[in-house]
Amino acid sequence: MSAFDAVELIRTKRDDGILSDAAIRWLFEAYVAGEVAEEQMSAMLMAICWRGLSPQELNTWTATMLDSGERLDLSSLRRPTVDKHSTGGVGDKVSLILAPLVAACGAAVPQLSGRGLGHTGGTLDKLEAIPGWRATLSNAEILAQLDSVGAVICAAGAELAPADRRTYALRDVTGTVESIPLITASIMSKKLAEGTSALVLDVKVGTGAFMTNRAEARTLARTMVDVGEAAGVRTVALLTAMDTPLGRAIGNGLEVTESVEVLRGGGPADLRAVTLALAREMVSLVGLDVDPEAVLDSGAALHSYEQMIAAQGGDPSVAMAEAPQRHLVRADASGVVSRLEARALGVAAWRLGAGRARREDPISATAGIVVLAPEGTEVAAGEPILELHVDDPTKLDRALAALKGAIEVGDTAPDSAPEVLERIAAGPR
Amino acid sequence: MSAFDAVELIRTKRDDGILSDAAIRWLFEAYVAGEVAEEQMSAMLMAICWRGLSPQELNTWTATMLDSGERLDLSSLRRPTVDKHSTGGVGDKVSLILAPLVAACGAAVPQLSGRGLGHTGGTLDKLEAIPGWRATLSNAEILAQLDSVGAVICAAGAELAPADRRTYALRDVTGTVESIPLITASIMSKKLAEGTSALVLDVKVGTGAFMTNRAEARTLARTMVDVGEAAGVRTVALLTAMDTPLGRAIGNGLEVTESVEVLRGGGPADLRAVTLALAREMVSLVGLDVDPEAVLDSGAALHSYEQMIAAQGGDPSVAMAEAPQRHLVRADASGVVSRLEARALGVAAWRLGAGRARREDPISATAGIVVLAPEGTEVAAGEPILELHVDDPTKLDRALAALKGAIEVGDTAPDSAPEVLERIAAGPR
Repeated sequence: MSAFDAVELIRTKRDDGILSDAAIRWLFEAYVAGEVAEEQMSAMLMAICWRGLSPQELNTWTATMLDSGERLDLSSLRRPTVDKHSTGGVGDKVSLILAPLVAACGAAVPQLSGRGLGHTGGTLDKLEAIPGWRATLSNAEILAQLDSVGAVICAAGAELAPADRRTYALRDVTGTVESIPLITASIMSKKLAEGTSALVLDVKVGTGAFMTNRAEARTLARTMVDVGEAAGVRTVALLTAMDTPLGRAIGNGLEVTESVEVLRGGGPADLRAVTLALAREMVSLVGLDVDPEAVLDSGAALHSYEQMIAAQGGDPSVAMAEAPQRHLVRADASGVVSRLEARALGVAAWRLGAGRARREDPISATAGIVVLAPEGTEVAAGEPILELHVDDPTKLDRALAALKGAIEVGDTAPDSAPEVLERIAAGPR
Repeated sequence: MSAFDAVELIRTKRDDGILSDAAIRWLFEAYVAGEVAEEQMSAMLMAICWRGLSPQELNTWTATMLDSGERLDLSSLRRPTVDKHSTGGVGDKVSLILAPLVAACGAAVPQLSGRGLGHTGGTLDKLEAIPGWRATLSNAEILAQLDSVGAVICAAGAELAPADRRTYALRDVTGTVESIPLITASIMSKKLAEGTSALVLDVKVGTGAFMTNRAEARTLARTMVDVGEAAGVRTVALLTAMDTPLGRAIGNGLEVTESVEVLRGGGPADLRAVTLALAREMVSLVGLDVDPEAVLDSGAALHSYEQMIAAQGGDPSVAMAEAPQRHLVRADASGVVSRLEARALGVAAWRLGAGRARREDPISATAGIVVLAPEGTEVAAGEPILELHVDDPTKLDRALAALKGAIEVGDTAPDSAPEVLERIAAGPR
């Protein structure tokens, strides 16, 4: 007889009870061992969608998933360690700029990433648009690159939080993804496995984000900060806007190009602002007395970027390939672009080939969208608003269908909202 | 591509949406076909524990499970058809008396039953204490016996609501049993499959019942009545008391003996009262102008019972075997028996061998408990209150342990509550 019974634990959670630390640890051990069946775990996950997890339960749930795999040992590094996680948004290429920027500020940034699924792109997918660049590194390579360059963006290996990997796959097919504690445990177990001393969370809010509602986003941010702090990692979250795309480029190669523009001191103001806000939090958390803006403008961040790309086999000097065909989406009236809806643009870029619906789908390096006239721009009727980059013309119609209703040209510009909506740090609620 | 997607349906229910009739029917078809996985169905079931089912969803859910199997065709019978279902209680041997009684009143009662699990016994287990009696009949045998005797108590075959059978097994291991709509669909799909024109529900309320709370029992009764009426079956529910055992006997053979006592005009008053109340509802629902009490007292019900037992191979004249050993539980003080807790007595009888923990466990025909001094009886210290019938002495200690705290002798008798607490019939709420 084992110490716990799966049905009793499910009933406990279903009836709004609390699972002990030992019960949670047993649950995952038995699940991995096949003694708790998939249908039992999925019932538990739905009960958690219903009842939630207490802070203590959530800390243990996260720790159990973390402890199911290995944790990077960064203790040999001579730099302070910090990372960033974004909940994902349309045109969110911040990591490509931020990791080398913060490295140039003096920290080590081990960004272990995933691939994109759905309407938001994945950081690895973007960097793989660079010929020769490879996403898979050994732990020794990660440590060596962190020591020399200070920044690594690479694939999170299967040995990081494997229990989360398995649980996530189950959540995906059982309608149990949308739960703040389960999202928190999944994100934080993987980020804590990176072994950094600090973590900054970019929680996107808006129609193009996973969290469309600000109060919910705040709850998620608060929950993640609490779990990070409880695990001994200094954690801060920024809520940032995601109603319209971040920057002008959506699509893998296009986003690499735009990132390099920012690293060269140019690029869209919103993208630069969000990146710098996150960089300031990161350097501040690890006690570095540097101004990221000065570092960016000095060209040091660009230098770190070039080193980072080269260390992983890419040639940072090569321009990105371009799609063979362009299609312009034009203003149907004169006025001000009052709405350019992030989610629709994300879906359109995805349909052009920039994203995938299933993990095994191929992805295009060149397909995507460039926003020519972002929200607030005055346009005359017939002037182009979007430039679609098309490498497979058969995909154009479905992409255009996704844009239906996503673009509005009106009399007045939208209220200009700040890029950073809110900052959430540890402390009493 | 199929018309529906399991994950979308789970998310709909999780978010408190409504599943269409077509969606519910697809869900079960795909589940039976293996296209909807067990872990998806269990997540759906937990979402239903959370969100419930609307009346329309519940009617469709029940109809889908009913339609997954066959429905008895009773149209050839010359008697009106009616059945009873009890949610189960300690000492609940009502069916053994009621089926032949209502048959003697002129109706046909096809009682397709299950076996007991846990602390409440099963009707088939009780009747199997009669040597030679067999629970399994073909449909032709059921119809013939209904025509000649008017009463059949036999095993519900695998062809009745097989989708419920499979769903119930899944609920059992995933903590999703305790849901009023799921309980309702499970009970009603099986009862509707009997093909009767009317149905009376005995919903037990109290510590010894599945529903310990009167308001919840009322909700379950109301829900079942509505589903029955929506399916075209006249349905009435009685809430009956189950804080202390019904009658004096708990245990398979002991309950057969007590049932025959009632059929002979004797037996405990509470058991007789509940049986007659249910019988009155049944004859009234099918429009028979007879008084069940007169029929019981005439001996006609006993005659029907004997025919019913004999038709299924049993000899109704043989006395039940008795357990080789008795153990008396005595009053530890003088006073009035103020509490004789049904659940504890049920568990004690179960531990003596009268019930089973798993479907495949053997069961004793002779083990059980006879209540010598029911609630309200004056006793002197040392006088016996319970007589335990023991056929395996190694089981006695655990049975006695279950009785700890279950018996109270005090200064005053408990408030005498009526056996029938409430009547719930169709109509506006």
